[in-house]
This record gives sequence, C-alpha cells and structure tokens, in this order.
Amino acid sequence: MITLYHCDGARSFRPLWMLEELGLAYELKMLPFPPRVLAKDYLAINPLGTIPFLIDGETRMTESSGICHYLGIKHGPTPLMVGPEEKDYGTFLNWMYFSDATLTFPQTLVLRYGQLEPDERRSPQVAGDYAKWFLGRLRAVEAATRTAEFLSAGRFTAADIVIGYALRLAETIGLSKDFGPNVAGYWARLQQRDGYLRARTAEQRAGVEQGITPRVRP
Amino acid sequence: MITLYHCDGARSFRPLWMLEELGLAYELKMLPFPPRVLAKDYLAINPLGTIPFLIDGETRMTESSGICHYLGIKHGPTPLMVGPEEKDYGTFLNWMYFSDATLTFPQTLVLRYGQLEPDERRSPQVAGDYAKWFLGRLRAVEAATRTAEFLSAGRFTAADIVIGYALRLAETIGLSKDFGPNVAGYWARLQQRDGYLRARTAEQRAGVEQGITPRVRP
Repeated sequence: MITLYHCDGARSFRPLWMLEELGLAYELKMLPFPPRVLAKDYLAINPLGTIPFLIDGETRMTESSGICHYLGIKHGPTPLMVGPEEKDYGTFLNWMYFSDATLTFPQTLVLRYGQLEPDERRSPQVAGDYAKWFLGRLRAVEAATRTAEFLSAGRFTAADIVIGYALRLAETIGLSKDFGPNVAGYWARLQQRDGYLRARTAEQRAGVEQGITPRVRP
Repeated sequence: MITLYHCDGARSFRPLWMLEELGLAYELKMLPFPPRVLAKDYLAINPLGTIPFLIDGETRMTESSGICHYLGIKHGPTPLMVGPEEKDYGTFLNWMYFSDATLTFPQTLVLRYGQLEPDERRSPQVAGDYAKWFLGRLRAVEAATRTAEFLSAGRFTAADIVIGYALRLAETIGLSKDFGPNVAGYWARLQQRDGYLRARTAEQRAGVEQGITPRVRP
C-alpha cells in the first residue's frame, strides 16, 4: 500500500493528483500546516518535517515532482510519462524539474514575506522580487501553451500535473491575476480534468474525516 | 554535437561534470554573469536568460539537474544512473530533484540578499533565514553519508554530481563552515574525483580561451 502525507493545498497535491490519474490505491494522511510545528510526531516519520512524504514498500521520498516521476515509472507503463524514445523526452524532463525548482520556490517567498511572517519580519521588497521572478519564469509556460494544449508530447502527462500545481499555488496566493492569456486558458483546462477533480475531492474528504482544518499553504 | 552554455561556478557546472563523467564530446560556451544583463545576445538562444542551456540535436533544456538526468538516460546506459529495477531507485530520484529545488534555491537567497544586491536592498534577515533553511535540509545529506560513501545504490551516481554542486556553491558563499562532519568528508572525497577535476579544468580553460573573467555565481 502507498501512503502519502499531505497538507491541504500544499505541493504534496502533485503526487495526490498523480495517484488519481494513475488510478492507484493509496492512503492519504492529512497533517496541519506547518507539520514541524503542529504535528511534532511527524518528525519521527520524516526527520526534515517537510511535506510531501511518500511510503511505498521500502521506498521513502520527500520531493513532490520526484514522487510523480517515481510513481509513473514504478507503477507504469503509462502515457503520463514521456519515454526516452520520444522526441519530447528532454522537454518533458525539463518541465518535471522546472516545476518545483523554478516555479514553486519563488512563490514560497512571496507567501512567507508577504503573508505568513509576523509584521516585523515581513518584506514587501523580497515578496515583490520573487513575484516578478516567478512571472518572468512563467513566460516559458506562456510560450509553450500558445499553440499546444499540453506541455509535451501532444498529450496530458505528469509534466502538466507538476506545472499545474504551481499554477494552483499562484492562484491561492494572488499571482494568477498576472497570468498571460495562454497560461490562464491552460490552467482553466487542467482544472476540468477528472483526475484533478478527484484529487481535490480526496483532499477535502480526508481533511474532514481526519479533522484537519483546511489551510492553503505551499 | 552537444553544446552547453555555462557561467563560471554556476549550477551549469552540474551538466559539465556529468558530461566529463560520461566522457562525451561537447562544446562549452562561457558567458559572463549575469548573462541576461551582460550578454543580451544570449536571450535569442534562451529567452529566459538563465543558465545552463543545453542543445543536443533538437533538444533544448534549462534545468541543471534535469539535464544530468537526460544525459544519463539518452547517452547511457551508465552506472551513473540508478534504474527502476534497483532498490534505491526512489532514493536516487529524490536526490536528483532535491538537489536544486531544496538545496540550491535557498543558497541563491543567501547570496542575493547577503552579497549581490546594492546595500539598500540587502536583507541580513532573509539571508539568515535561508542559510538556516539550507543547513536544516542539509541534515538529510549528513544522515545519508554517515555510513555510506555515496548517496544511493552503493556507488557514485548522478545524484552525487547534483548534490555535490550544491556543496560547491555552499563553499563559495561561505556556508561550508557549518557542514557536519559527514558532509565535510563526503565533499572532500567528491573533489578528488577525476571527473570533478576534469570539469574544473574545462571550466577554467574555456573561461581563459573565451576571455570570460571568472566570477563565482549561482
């Protein structure tokens, strides 16, 4: 059995969405945010205190986009992955890595120094620097979705899941008003997918069942 | 022919080191840092203006750890990659993604708000927050190298290259004084590898030949 630790709206939504797209059985364990403060027992499971955390047999993982990659390969074959024999393999891999390193980390700064820190530690300058940084890098998604429905290989793949989550986070923290028209349309399409909607439902249901108040956080 | 765009000491060192470990032929193009300011022609090649940039036939990539992954698969098979049939596959993939998203981005904040920004835009608070953040996440490397020589599969792999670069950057920006003993020993071993030394030599030689003054930057 696969076990995924998740906080409402957090980047662990990536593997949750991937699990739903793959149709795999899994157990979803909800944690309050931030778990390293509000669920100290969790440190015995994941010493870093970060989410996500995946357990699959002997395997333990903490990287949201890496887990999607792992699930697609270990529980595939699946058209959600682009193989080395396909023309778009490099493009696909680049989006997989780009999703968190380039499109998510800057958003955590916007959130931290714009909203989460106590007043005396906030920094409008830093929040602004990284809002700009994020939107600059998002131009790559704007260009890629100008004529194509999806990011690689002409079909919906794990790359759309991991980039799609970065767009969900942007909407949550107030950056989606600056999406270009292609990104806005792409994000609207992604939200209509059955797999996305199932993942949102699973997240809400598990939160209610486990008594975790929804709080949207990276 | 493979072409790699690189700035001295930047994270494009990851694919450079991978190319040397694989023994592949490549052309190394050096750029001044930051290229989007000092080499505006580069924007015609990579509209994001970021480094690295890899060209391999029709493939174009910008993510340093993703390029290592791509090279290992497309130009393999190689023991530098851990395959899905190996016990440590998930661990290996996790380090690949962890290297940039979790261990490099925080360091760029330490550098930016501690050293690169003009005085009035510096923020000792933010630089301190992310030095602490980096060192917290580095505990995972400290734990993994307590008894093992390398990070996964009992051998040197691409995971050691991508994490090794994060340690090089830490040394450059003054964070290595806080390495734990296992990380310090691991980093010392990595620097003795022939492939690492060849990559350092290639970087220095190309800089001199192309008239690019060395500046160590992320």
